[in-house]
Amino acid sequence: MRTVNVGIIGLGTVGGGFVRLLARHHDDYVTAYGVDLRLARGCARNPRHAEELGLAPGVFTTDWHDVTGDPDVDIVVELIGGDHPAIEIFREAFSNGKHVVTANKAMLSRHMGELAGLAHASGVQLRCEAAVAGGIPIVETLEHALVGNEILTIAGIVNGTTNYMLTRMEREGLSFDEVLADAQRLGYAEADPTADVDGLDAAAKAAILATIGFSTRVTMDDVSVVEGIRHVDAQDVRNASAFGYRIKLLAVARRTPDGLDVRVHPAMISKDHQLARVDGVYNAVYVVGDAVGETMYFGAGAGAFPTASAVMGDVIALATPIAFGGAPLPEAEPFPRAQPIRTADSLHERYYVRMTVSDAAGILARVAGVFGEHGVSLAQLNQTAGETGEAGETVQIVLVTHRSLERDVRDALDQLRATDGVLAIESVIRVEDTDAWRREAMDA
Amino acid sequence: MRTVNVGIIGLGTVGGGFVRLLARHHDDYVTAYGVDLRLARGCARNPRHAEELGLAPGVFTTDWHDVTGDPDVDIVVELIGGDHPAIEIFREAFSNGKHVVTANKAMLSRHMGELAGLAHASGVQLRCEAAVAGGIPIVETLEHALVGNEILTIAGIVNGTTNYMLTRMEREGLSFDEVLADAQRLGYAEADPTADVDGLDAAAKAAILATIGFSTRVTMDDVSVVEGIRHVDAQDVRNASAFGYRIKLLAVARRTPDGLDVRVHPAMISKDHQLARVDGVYNAVYVVGDAVGETMYFGAGAGAFPTASAVMGDVIALATPIAFGGAPLPEAEPFPRAQPIRTADSLHERYYVRMTVSDAAGILARVAGVFGEHGVSLAQLNQTAGETGEAGETVQIVLVTHRSLERDVRDALDQLRATDGVLAIESVIRVEDTDAWRREAMDA
Repeated sequence: MRTVNVGIIGLGTVGGGFVRLLARHHDDYVTAYGVDLRLARGCARNPRHAEELGLAPGVFTTDWHDVTGDPDVDIVVELIGGDHPAIEIFREAFSNGKHVVTANKAMLSRHMGELAGLAHASGVQLRCEAAVAGGIPIVETLEHALVGNEILTIAGIVNGTTNYMLTRMEREGLSFDEVLADAQRLGYAEADPTADVDGLDAAAKAAILATIGFSTRVTMDDVSVVEGIRHVDAQDVRNASAFGYRIKLLAVARRTPDGLDVRVHPAMISKDHQLARVDGVYNAVYVVGDAVGETMYFGAGAGAFPTASAVMGDVIALATPIAFGGAPLPEAEPFPRAQPIRTADSLHERYYVRMTVSDAAGILARVAGVFGEHGVSLAQLNQTAGETGEAGETVQIVLVTHRSLERDVRDALDQLRATDGVLAIESVIRVEDTDAWRREAMDA
Repeated sequence: MRTVNVGIIGLGTVGGGFVRLLARHHDDYVTAYGVDLRLARGCARNPRHAEELGLAPGVFTTDWHDVTGDPDVDIVVELIGGDHPAIEIFREAFSNGKHVVTANKAMLSRHMGELAGLAHASGVQLRCEAAVAGGIPIVETLEHALVGNEILTIAGIVNGTTNYMLTRMEREGLSFDEVLADAQRLGYAEADPTADVDGLDAAAKAAILATIGFSTRVTMDDVSVVEGIRHVDAQDVRNASAFGYRIKLLAVARRTPDGLDVRVHPAMISKDHQLARVDGVYNAVYVVGDAVGETMYFGAGAGAFPTASAVMGDVIALATPIAFGGAPLPEAEPFPRAQPIRTADSLHERYYVRMTVSDAAGILARVAGVFGEHGVSLAQLNQTAGETGEAGETVQIVLVTHRSLERDVRDALDQLRATDGVLAIESVIRVEDTDAWRREAMDA
């Protein structure tokens, strides 16, 4: 058995968690798996991290080249985030024959194909379990356990911040702004919450999940819809509940006859669906494979130790063959399947719409008529309590369509915006047909 | 890329599913993973299977030695179940340098340590994802993804038949016998339902999960409690619900200061716990690691294609290095940690007890007194509607203890059985403290 040397770049929350986890379990890994991991180098901008973590003398550096260029280092763990110098770190590590483990979802969502190709060419591995859904082993599951399946559907709650917010909005009837302020105070949301609440973080994860699940290159730019929860109103949360739904921010990636359907947006899903029951900051990823049918993976999506758990799993997977004198299998030809990406126009869903209209005779019929002109039929159409304002009496209309082409729904809404008596389209939320997610499984 | 040859022994439900899955996706595996799998040999007692599955000429045999002895075969898939000739198949395959993939939980629950040792000595692998919880990748997760963790708790619903029965008993208020008859009619329960309803199947899986999760040898004989659901009454299901619990047949494996606690029995768990929401024939395994915290894995626990999905995942994991001219890493020194096994006597749980007593003055006080004498304090004590029978008026007492030593509870119950006015101890069901399951996690 030989010692396996790990060089870590980034000693923040996750990096610190990794160092602490290794210190705690080093001897266990030797006993249980025959793997003797050594923290050979640790890099951060601020030497304070090295002190706090009690790094041995000679381990700490502020220059990442000392890690990627150290001939002793077998595995580079990149935990700094951002594109630069992360991309340069990957390139130099690969060209020096080192494997890389990362949690850098934003960067991977744009450059995963290219970097996996570089790893392949260099005969090393790129591993990224920690990049999606923290400690939940969804990457390993898609890359290995479910590899016998044609993946049909991936639908995930992959952003803990927004799930925490939606859960509180539903339970306490609070508004988006009230819950956001609270989440920021409690540390669940950043001071600049854009990446979370506008769906960008979830979109990066959707791209990674689709890339791995469908063995094809899907980037952030291929995600056909990226909508966050900023426009979800407490009223919509209440209406959803009355209709038997819950609103979740979903990252969806589905194989369809028209190509891959990859999108992130708030969605109404049946209260009975497993994903509907995932509350608070937790994450879950629901996967349907044609052979395995429905599966779901639940756990913490963030946090120092859950994320360090995922990083450590990747490190030990690489270290095991090295410890025994071999080498991990090089990265395979990355994502070799070419698959078209479907646009949002061709989506075929049900749609929840809430609008404010003037309380005039025949307004419901007029609204229904406009949808009808565009071939969109309505499953439900309710008028809710009105209010009297400066513009006279107004009422809210809440409706749910039957399955319709998104293009047609959009056209109908455009026409409604110009229709006499329609004052505002307040919100439009897709209603997912969760039964359709599993319909193509072999046992279904 | 070289063709990888698979020899399969057992062409029943799962074996047939595997052959069909391979036929369906052979070309996809080539495209996506560069793995060209060939069904080199297929063995069954009955040639009808070969015809139904359309095996190529020369592939079928009725003699398993033709599979284990075929120099072309790289991977042997054993799907016949039972101890013999399964054990002989493993031995011959290993000594011929072939990897083995199996779903044989009953056999593994007794011989896994020995067989993994043989694989290790022969430089090959033994893989068994399909042996526990069908298509759910729990073995892979424990062996790889969560390997950075000290596993604290594994609690699984790993028997679909009994979960289906308990779900229907709860939803429809039916008795065990009524639901069993229905389950047998629908094919969810065997004509001889013993292995399922008496907890033996779940105990085998508990032993395998504990072996892998704790890297130690746990056999069927080490499972300290094996109780099925035969004695769960519709009244207990109703009472559980009234107390805020649901009854599930759990396979529990926990690390405790007194040793490993491995057991299978019906348990009351909070309605809010994720496991409580797993209904019908589905399986789920809840795992707490010290770093990752709470996780859960959900899916189909049985069925031709879900199980074949697990087998195929194992086969492709082995085939990938072979296809690229290498070899899978040999089985590691198996389960090297020595850990004591805790007995049921030292369990420290809460207990639900239902008993029939005569409707005499002071009977409640007498029952409470006996528990008190044994150091068992009661959290709830209710007398429910009585009935008049031949022995005069009787009433039911339902109680839940505070956390107590199982030994003390048993002693109290023994004394109660000899106590005047106590007519019968109808049922005793452990109430799990699901909060304790995650309490030792690093972030908890």
